[in-house]
Parts: sequence; structure tokens; C-alpha cells
Amino acid sequence: MSTSGCPLSTMELLTSDNGDVVGLLTASDDAYEGVIVDMKTHMDSAAFVSSLKASISHWRQQGKKGVWIKLPIELVHLVQAAVEEGFWYHHAEPKYLMLVYWIPDTVHTLPINATHRVGIGAFVMNDKKEVLVVQENSGPFQGTGIWKFPTGVIDEGEDISAGAIREVKEETGIDAEFIEVLAFRQSHKSLFEKSDLFFVCMLRPLSFDIQKQESEIEAAQWMPIEEYAVQPSVKKHELLKYIADICLVKIEKGYAGFSPVSTKSFISAHDSFLYLNKRDLSQH
Amino acid sequence: MSTSGCPLSTMELLTSDNGDVVGLLTASDDAYEGVIVDMKTHMDSAAFVSSLKASISHWRQQGKKGVWIKLPIELVHLVQAAVEEGFWYHHAEPKYLMLVYWIPDTVHTLPINATHRVGIGAFVMNDKKEVLVVQENSGPFQGTGIWKFPTGVIDEGEDISAGAIREVKEETGIDAEFIEVLAFRQSHKSLFEKSDLFFVCMLRPLSFDIQKQESEIEAAQWMPIEEYAVQPSVKKHELLKYIADICLVKIEKGYAGFSPVSTKSFISAHDSFLYLNKRDLSQH
Repeated sequence: MSTSGCPLSTMELLTSDNGDVVGLLTASDDAYEGVIVDMKTHMDSAAFVSSLKASISHWRQQGKKGVWIKLPIELVHLVQAAVEEGFWYHHAEPKYLMLVYWIPDTVHTLPINATHRVGIGAFVMNDKKEVLVVQENSGPFQGTGIWKFPTGVIDEGEDISAGAIREVKEETGIDAEFIEVLAFRQSHKSLFEKSDLFFVCMLRPLSFDIQKQESEIEAAQWMPIEEYAVQPSVKKHELLKYIADICLVKIEKGYAGFSPVSTKSFISAHDSFLYLNKRDLSQH
Repeated sequence: MSTSGCPLSTMELLTSDNGDVVGLLTASDDAYEGVIVDMKTHMDSAAFVSSLKASISHWRQQGKKGVWIKLPIELVHLVQAAVEEGFWYHHAEPKYLMLVYWIPDTVHTLPINATHRVGIGAFVMNDKKEVLVVQENSGPFQGTGIWKFPTGVIDEGEDISAGAIREVKEETGIDAEFIEVLAFRQSHKSLFEKSDLFFVCMLRPLSFDIQKQESEIEAAQWMPIEEYAVQPSVKKHELLKYIADICLVKIEKGYAGFSPVSTKSFISAHDSFLYLNKRDLSQH
């Protein structure tokens, strides 16, 4: 039986050095001379180790470099076996663990894991120069009486602009359209070793009746922007002061932020947004 | 023996329902009514399960919510046990896996994992309006003859500005100072399910003799910016065309990007950078 023999559901068969028939793990190629194994069916640990050893030997002959194994959490019993074969952790999500291995005798050039969470704060002002503000019922601002912009975390795969619209809708019931990013802040060690990128976004309201979210929001209202900006907490906190100043300059004298334009992506079929200073670019 | 009894190296002791003495896992409190267990010493799987059950019962009585367990890869034999007790994966890095569990009978409010990798592209121009460009010897541009800006991925915990300076130095040997972010692009599914944020940064060169990196860079040179911008690959690719246009407007007519100001962080002892349109804000 050869390596080109009949593929089974998740593997093909190979005769090992000692004559036993061993299943090879089914893998697809990645774009960097590596292979990806997406484990979906149950195997016992011993069979997995035999197949993994045979597969690595096979991939080494083929000149493959990185080996990715995605193990759903239901196959947690195979994690120890993979690590004992030299794999290490690359990343994990609630339902799976991605392990990785490097075949060549060189320092690996595998890409690093995601390093940043992305958050947004939304500056939403109506025609009366009132800004949409909330008080939260949990987290560091709970019970402080501080009125703040709606904020939130971008979901996996979500555009910053879409996330800002979604958070405003969820927290206050207000429909809004995205205008631009006014500023952003990068900070480190926000959750264990991970960093944060927080985008201050300006949105234009399309509705005006507030319906606050019960679970996270204590109160929500339209507040005159001068009243927002003179809150002691805003005046004394450097970051909040900057953001309030930017918003005031924005509405009084003009301040160009970065607005999104849709562009073709290099790396996927979906368009991606480029955020740029459209006002200054239009001088071109 | 009470729950306040003598702490051992990584646990304290508790008498279980059936009278056995069981070690409680040592945990520190987090800021959200949860606990963090940083496992450092070896335990066998059965002892770990007993301790974990007793600890969860103890934390439930204390009203704790989320439970984080950080397992170094050397303790991979405990992963299966934790998952069988109801834990799931939160995130992983090469040397450890972070598992998490939610004690209350409510939907959890645990923070999501990092979702984005952060990359930079560096626009570095000298006084002769020559731009620093490279050809790569691997990746999608290999062998295409395209001259491109130095690019790279931000390390964990690294500032965007510092990462841009580092990448320029590594790839070309050029020292540079950070000026501003000219634009940024968000794209999805760049590495499995993760997204990318790519910041186009302008830097001012402080040295001029190129010493290219052998491992990744095929060639590097100073190239007149008009010559860069008329490359067919740049003219026909929407994103590269936008970036070239922005750079040309920047040097010919003025284009305000976002430059970093250091601000106190809410969440850590370190300052963090806020990137904003300093030119427009200074009208204030």
C-alpha cells in the first residue's frame, strides 16, 4: 500500500518501517510551505501518536516546514500527546486549541499570535450640541457618577466602524452612522500580557429616543457637550481631557480624523477598510 | 483544620466532606470578583482534580465568579482534567495555556481573547525625496521585483512607534525617528480567524547608509518617490495606490496624520500613547 492509497475519512494509510499499516493525518497545505491538520474525528491517544509520527516523517520528506494541528476541545485527550511529540501552543479559543511544530532544523518563522484586543469609544452628538453619555453599572466607573461615552470591545471579525455602531445601539438604543476615527490609544498589559487598541470614533445619530440597555447601563442621556467636558473626572484625567478637547475642536473649528474607505484586501476575498485623513487627501 | 490553615507552597489545606485533607489551589483575586490560579509546581492529575473541586466549592461560597487557571506547557497533563471539570480555553501562548471557568448560574461576562495582530509599514524619506524601499526574499512579494516599504509585525507589548523604528532598523540598518501614523487598515481572517490592523507610519531617517538584513531582505535602496509611485504594482493595487497618494500629498501639500502623545494609562503603571491629529488640535 502506497502513500497515495485510499483516503479514509480523516487520513490515508501508509506502511510503517516495521510493516504495520499506519494512518497518515489528513492535512491541507498552507501558503508558507506548511500543513494544517484540522482534527475532527475521535482517535485514541496511541493511534494519534503513531499517525502523527508517520505524518511528520512524510511531511519532512516533502520538505514541509510548519505543522498546525487544530484540536477541538472535545479532543482534549490528544493535547498531551502532541506536546510530547514536540508541538507547542500557538493560540486557543473557547472551543479549540491550535498547536504548532516546526520540521526544519532552523529557527521557526511562524507568525505570532494575536496580541491586541480592540475597543471603541463613541462620540455621538445631536444638532443641539448634546452628546450621548452613559453611566455603567459594572467595571471601574461603576458608582462614580461619571457620565462617559458609550464604549465596548470589537468582536472577532468585526469592522471598527460596525462595532462602534453596534455598541451605541446596544447601550442606548440610538441608531447612528459612522463618521471617522478621531484618535486612538495603544496600551499594554490590559488583560494578562495582551495589549489594547482603543479607537475614539465620531458617529452621527439617526434616532434620538434613548432606550438604555438594562444589563450594563445604569443611566443614559443627551448632555450638553460643555457640561460633559467640565466634569471633574474628565478635566483631571489626561486621556479624557484630550478626548474632550478633540471633540470640542472637531465641532468648533474642524479637526480631521481618519474616515474609512473600502479597499480590496490582499489576503482575503472580503474588502477591508483603510482609515485615512480624507479631507487632506482630497487636496490631491 | 480550617480553611485559613497553614499555606503550603502552592496551596492551603481543607478537610473535604468525607474527612480527607485536600489542598486548595492558591489563587489571587482579579479586579472582577474572580480568581487567578498560576500553577507552577508539579501535581499529579488525581490530586489536581481533588484540589480543583474543593477550591471551586470554596470560591463558590466566597461569591467568586470567574476562575482563571494558567497552566505552563510542562503541566500539559492537567489540561484534560481541567476541561473535564468544566473549564474551557481562553487563550494560549507558546509556553502556557489559560483556561477559564464561570461559577455563577449566569451567562459569563469574561473578556474576550485578543483578536488582532498589529503590523506596520514604514514610509521613510530623505531630503532628496528618495524613499527607503526593499525587496523581500520570502512571502507573497518574493520574486515579483516590487519595491515596497519596510513592513513588519509588532511584538507583544511593543508600541507601534517603537515597532516601526525597530523594523526599519532590522531590515535596512537605517536609524529613524517616528513622526506619525498616516493611515491604517483593518482586515479580517488574516491568520485563521484573527484580524489584522496595519498602520502606515511616517518616519524621518537619522542615518543614510543602508545595511540590508540578510535573512529576509533581497535588496534595499533609496528610490525617488515618483519612481516608487509609478511602479505598475503600486498603480494597479488599490491599497498601495492610496498609500502612495497619501505620501505624495503629505510631502507636497501637507497631510495631517496622527502623532503620538504620552498619557497616563487607566489600566497599568506604564504610560500609553494616544495618537491624534496634533496639527488640528493645536488650533484649540
